[in-house]
Amino acid sequence: MAKALSGAGLRGQVAGKTALSTVGVSGSGLTYRGYDVKDLANNCQFEEVAYLILKGKLPNQQELDAYKTKLKSMRGLPQALKDVLERIPADAHPMDVLRTGCSMLGNLEMEKDFSEQDAVTDRMLACFPSIICYWYRFSHDGVKVDVETDDDSIGAHFLHLLHGEKPNELHEQVMHVSLILYAEHEFNASTFTARVCASTLSDMHSCITGAIGSLRGPLHGGANEAAMEMIEGFTSADHAEEEMMGKLARKEKIMGFGHAIYSESDPRNEIIKGWSEKLAKDVGDEVLYPVSVRCEEVMWREKKLFCNADFFHASAYHFMGIPTKLFTPIFVMSRLTGWAAHVMEQRADNRIIRPSAEYTGEDLRAVTPIAERA
Amino acid sequence: MAKALSGAGLRGQVAGKTALSTVGVSGSGLTYRGYDVKDLANNCQFEEVAYLILKGKLPNQQELDAYKTKLKSMRGLPQALKDVLERIPADAHPMDVLRTGCSMLGNLEMEKDFSEQDAVTDRMLACFPSIICYWYRFSHDGVKVDVETDDDSIGAHFLHLLHGEKPNELHEQVMHVSLILYAEHEFNASTFTARVCASTLSDMHSCITGAIGSLRGPLHGGANEAAMEMIEGFTSADHAEEEMMGKLARKEKIMGFGHAIYSESDPRNEIIKGWSEKLAKDVGDEVLYPVSVRCEEVMWREKKLFCNADFFHASAYHFMGIPTKLFTPIFVMSRLTGWAAHVMEQRADNRIIRPSAEYTGEDLRAVTPIAERA
Ligand SMILES: CC(C)(COP(=O)(O)OP(=O)(O)OC[C@H]1O[C@@H](n2cnc3c(N)ncnc32)[C@H](O)[C@@H]1OP(=O)(O)O)[C@@H](O)C(=O)NCCC(=O)NCCS
Ligand SMILES: CC(C)(COP(=O)(O)OP(=O)(O)OC[C@H]1O[C@@H](n2cnc3c(N)ncnc32)[C@H](O)[C@@H]1OP(=O)(O)O)[C@@H](O)C(=O)NCCC(=O)NCCS
Repeated sequence: MAKALSGAGLRGQVAGKTALSTVGVSGSGLTYRGYDVKDLANNCQFEEVAYLILKGKLPNQQELDAYKTKLKSMRGLPQALKDVLERIPADAHPMDVLRTGCSMLGNLEMEKDFSEQDAVTDRMLACFPSIICYWYRFSHDGVKVDVETDDDSIGAHFLHLLHGEKPNELHEQVMHVSLILYAEHEFNASTFTARVCASTLSDMHSCITGAIGSLRGPLHGGANEAAMEMIEGFTSADHAEEEMMGKLARKEKIMGFGHAIYSESDPRNEIIKGWSEKLAKDVGDEVLYPVSVRCEEVMWREKKLFCNADFFHASAYHFMGIPTKLFTPIFVMSRLTGWAAHVMEQRADNRIIRPSAEYTGEDLRAVTPIAERA
Repeated sequence: MAKALSGAGLRGQVAGKTALSTVGVSGSGLTYRGYDVKDLANNCQFEEVAYLILKGKLPNQQELDAYKTKLKSMRGLPQALKDVLERIPADAHPMDVLRTGCSMLGNLEMEKDFSEQDAVTDRMLACFPSIICYWYRFSHDGVKVDVETDDDSIGAHFLHLLHGEKPNELHEQVMHVSLILYAEHEFNASTFTARVCASTLSDMHSCITGAIGSLRGPLHGGANEAAMEMIEGFTSADHAEEEMMGKLARKEKIMGFGHAIYSESDPRNEIIKGWSEKLAKDVGDEVLYPVSVRCEEVMWREKKLFCNADFFHASAYHFMGIPTKLFTPIFVMSRLTGWAAHVMEQRADNRIIRPSAEYTGEDLRAVTPIAERA
């Protein structure tokens, strides 16, 4: 199920070791510490999976309760951080907001040495929804939202802050699944960014800030937003088919399809697609879901390209009333667990990551005095 | 002159192409676009080298004048950015300040598409000294410094803001040399961070923010500060020798020595060492410079380890009255040119950088119901 790998982008080159996940190797294609992602998505809350990834085992009930209570207690934001968020304009890119919020947090609550790595990670996990929603609600609605809710889960905390009311059960459940699906994915570009940073023995906030910047890119986390913008423009399944054929003819890249490692399917797609269908029924949608299904059919029929995790996330999030520009920040709230665990793993057995380059430039030449230059 | 390369940390593995520099291959060991770094350090101002790296050729007088005039005009900071800097405490890590300042700038002056890459880079080059000094002077001296000086160079602008008066000629000259030496260094960890981020097609501010976070690490840019803290504790050359022997016996890592690529010497060392000696004479130093020289002798004699670019930078900066914690931010002001040029190069011929990992974790296993977990 994994692709034949070669060539540019370090594709297929081993850049280090990990015990955190496998991609395209066993189970349905994605495992976290040996557990199939489908098994986890069907049976766990996100906080269990975060615990698994960060602390190495699935928690028992007592451990899970204690972990959730701890995370709940760390949702508040320091005043200086709120001041910063209030100065970021409404038309900023939410990933830039989160990148800046994370970086600012590092100034206020610095990781002084690596013994603090668990504590600073838990803190980020607890307060990233607060950061993004505080900014969003302030800049868009002029409200200074109280970020210290007593919601049971990270996903519910996020939806509560965003919508100003507690989410229903279905929405809280979908958030668990979504956050589980996005939590970890081996040496993807943002995780690899975090590991390169960690290899200089830099601090956790630097590693996560850098990873957020990489996830922002349209070839990576930004794909779910781009997919949404595309499908929103289609008025029916037939219209979608027509437009997709045109895009393919023009050799446009279609976001939410294809993958650097998987060759035939992304195991996360089937799961989120199922939930997107449920949500479509729940809201009475008769356009967006059928449009999405048709896009999937056309891409497979025409190009043998399959939906990655991002494609049905677009409609699912949309059905829950989440603004498109907040899609990638949700990815951050989840992938933070994988990033931090990779940083810890890199630190535990480190050599600075410093590859070589093939030189394609000018031969040695002498500096000409400035008066003689063309 | 380059090491035999292998093993962890992608050492010796080709991760891409570059026309920007060679390390350990030709000339004195480091070339920028074909020019030997010694030749550049002896004959150019930093702005010429920045132009070379970013625009591809050494500027003639007219181009240089226009470039410097342009950079001068972009030293000011938006009020929202000043507000952010005023909220960062004095005990923050200056690299965290710069990381946050760069990230905040991305919110206020976003790179909307890649056609703006030159403009946003020039802007950062012009205003990074303003960012770091505005924060430093505000948090340490309670002064809101006017960052729009008419100093002729980036180095002079920095020293002027820091000390509240225009630097003398010697100091301005050393800043040119120092900024030239640090400007570019192939696929080092921070540059590689920037390229991985760029490979997702993320924006320039994300790439540079990530690179700053990587440069912060003690194995990378942080080494000049660590070197300073060490040599400051030595009261004489003999004392230094004694202490160094103890460190070596205890197998401590000594910052400012060794290199991932060079095996026998770092070409930048000879140059900055010469300027450190001049500065020592200028300030009448009889301790720090001899101490530094002795450290170099001991490390070579005992371990065949040589000074890298960072070691004599420590004493040189110290002689110019620069606080130790601002050493690495100077590195940023310079390396920004290399980072940005690598981002542009990556964008021009991109594939997402996504390596593989060797899996060392658990085999596939089933999720146990929570009530049955240990
Ligand atoms: C994910 C992605 C970056 C993987 O990159 P990669 O490993 O370099 O891609 P591949 O080697 O599989 O590409 C093989 C071919 O399929 C094409 N292809 C891949 N994904 C495509 C897509 N989404 N739409 C159209 N064509 C695509 C490529 O252009 C390439 O064609 P070429 O050989 O003619 O240039 C790439 O599939 C992509 O850009 N997808 C869209 C963005 C996205 O959804 N990202 C989220 C990933 S979770
Ligand atoms: C620069 C550096 C990270 C290169 O890392 P690297 O390529 O993994 O290092 P090497 O493979 O050359 O190391 C070979 C051996 O020399 C030792 N060594 C390298 N630099 C050393 C130093 N500064 N002090 C003591 N020992 C050192 C290593 O520990 C290693 O010993 P081992 O084989 O017993 O473990 C490393 O030399 C270092 O940590 N230097 C100090 C930090 C510094 O000055 N960084 C700035 C670089 S510009």
